[in-house]
Amino acid sequence: MRASIKDIAKLTGYSITTVSLVLNNKGDKFSASAQEKILETAKQLNYRPNRHAVSLVKQHSNTFGLIVPDIGNHYFAQLATGIEHGCRKYGRMMFLCNTNDRHVRNIEYINQLAEMGVDGIFDILSSDTSQEQGIAELRLMDDLEIPHILVDRFLDVPGCFGIRNDHVRGGYLATKHLIDLGHRKIGCVTGPQLLKDAWQRYEGYRKALLENGISPEDQPIYQGDYSVECGEAAVETWTRDSYSAVFACNDASAMGVCRALMGRGISIPEEVSVVGYDDAIYAQMLQVPLTTIRQPIREMGMAAAKCLVDMVCDNTALQESIVFEPELIVRSSTAGRRGL
Amino acid sequence: MRASIKDIAKLTGYSITTVSLVLNNKGDKFSASAQEKILETAKQLNYRPNRHAVSLVKQHSNTFGLIVPDIGNHYFAQLATGIEHGCRKYGRMMFLCNTNDRHVRNIEYINQLAEMGVDGIFDILSSDTSQEQGIAELRLMDDLEIPHILVDRFLDVPGCFGIRNDHVRGGYLATKHLIDLGHRKIGCVTGPQLLKDAWQRYEGYRKALLENGISPEDQPIYQGDYSVECGEAAVETWTRDSYSAVFACNDASAMGVCRALMGRGISIPEEVSVVGYDDAIYAQMLQVPLTTIRQPIREMGMAAAKCLVDMVCDNTALQESIVFEPELIVRSSTAGRRGL
Repeated sequence: MRASIKDIAKLTGYSITTVSLVLNNKGDKFSASAQEKILETAKQLNYRPNRHAVSLVKQHSNTFGLIVPDIGNHYFAQLATGIEHGCRKYGRMMFLCNTNDRHVRNIEYINQLAEMGVDGIFDILSSDTSQEQGIAELRLMDDLEIPHILVDRFLDVPGCFGIRNDHVRGGYLATKHLIDLGHRKIGCVTGPQLLKDAWQRYEGYRKALLENGISPEDQPIYQGDYSVECGEAAVETWTRDSYSAVFACNDASAMGVCRALMGRGISIPEEVSVVGYDDAIYAQMLQVPLTTIRQPIREMGMAAAKCLVDMVCDNTALQESIVFEPELIVRSSTAGRRGL
Repeated sequence: MRASIKDIAKLTGYSITTVSLVLNNKGDKFSASAQEKILETAKQLNYRPNRHAVSLVKQHSNTFGLIVPDIGNHYFAQLATGIEHGCRKYGRMMFLCNTNDRHVRNIEYINQLAEMGVDGIFDILSSDTSQEQGIAELRLMDDLEIPHILVDRFLDVPGCFGIRNDHVRGGYLATKHLIDLGHRKIGCVTGPQLLKDAWQRYEGYRKALLENGISPEDQPIYQGDYSVECGEAAVETWTRDSYSAVFACNDASAMGVCRALMGRGISIPEEVSVVGYDDAIYAQMLQVPLTTIRQPIREMGMAAAKCLVDMVCDNTALQESIVFEPELIVRSSTAGRRGL
């Protein structure tokens, strides 16, 4: 059992109030020898203030909850690292709650975190969350009066703010890079249709094409799901002369594209250029290091931490979304179109 | 502000004691109408028990701390996922503490977690921890009377138990696989000398060679550091006829070996077989999917959670280490020696 103020009172013969005042630096009115005796005994017993007791008085626990789809996924692990780093900077500790990307778990964890008395919640929506469920999730946190902030994934609802990436810009940058290299036939392997961020990447792709007088309708499009297999399937499906470049909406599917191309003896980037998205850990490790879009994930996490701390301290809500800009990382998988 | 028992007492007109007893299912002696009124008011106010208050009485917070070198590292992210999954199963919440692999941070976090009143700590040592520092770290948790368990990395000290992998076995399995395929010239790219787990992988490599009458002294050895670059450097350093196979002590360096071999037009596995270690996320995504050693990381994490819950509930300490067995995953990067 850890030592309590009671134990120190018993051992020193002073009252609990006296001990408590001395330990909280409010013992001026007591004799120097009494103060010394109490502090010395506390040291010997390895006494530590109980934050549960402290937080009951202060009504702040200095703890946050982070609800995340899958901490084993590199992207979310990076995001959690940024948030943890930020929490640490502001003297907060963070509870980690893993949902396996299921909305029902978000709800369970919100209730549990409320019972724990956390000061705030970083909430990442699960990908099976419908618009109605998402709104209910936000309302639950409102009803529980827990300051909260949506990170990464967001809802298309007026007044719903959070911290996120500009994926339209990311898709635009990837496609513009290929156009600037002279490509006019640019295939696209999309992400899952349900995910808003996947849809936005595709939107950015279309935007770059249209701005440059290229018809999106003439391009080969493969409806993918962010897997390696869908990238391979795209190459198998498309006719060889329908593209000289590919924008795959994440790095895993880009890798599938590369693998299928190389398996057919088609060289990258000499014959086909490939751009991915995410700058996953393996992007630079592929046989041909991959040109891709990097999201400032850790920075996003740190910004989320700062926001939530401010919201808790100032008792305010976020007034607008904080949007981060992705960046094009050029490696070896892209080059000028042959003959240019 | 969240509703308190006091608020309910005020609104219903009953005493705080009465309200508290009713809300804790000990209100039998009060009238049904009184109980109903209190429960109804609690519901309207969205009242939730404050776990800080509850834990003050019960002396259990049902929270654990996980001290981890880098949650952004895929290996530790997997381990944390397993631990979180286990904690959830046993109704515990987990604080995540990231050390950036620095021992001083472990110490800081242990003190902080003690102040938070956690029931126990999962501790992963930082790689800059000397034997003395490691012993001091364990003693600190003993002094604070916090049940704790070392996960993954361990100290070579009598009576120091934890949850870990059998890396000697892993190195042995990787090398034995190559020997069984007919290889007699097997290069080794080691990990950082300071890390015990790296040393053990090399020990397993030597063991397999010696058991099969092959002299480790005749093999090309490259002192690496788990990086892609060291794998490339090994291939550049070694003479081509000194090996027909390579055991690289992690997947990143194995990838460096593969990249350097392919860059020289040497085909894998026809001319050289390569085995890695870790089964990193990119192992199966390489141009030639990598044969490697898989550690049961999530299972380790879940076992750690079960252990710590048992230790806290039964007030016992771990009596021996729990050692997990790694597994050989055969993919396309290994084959029989040419001419066999």
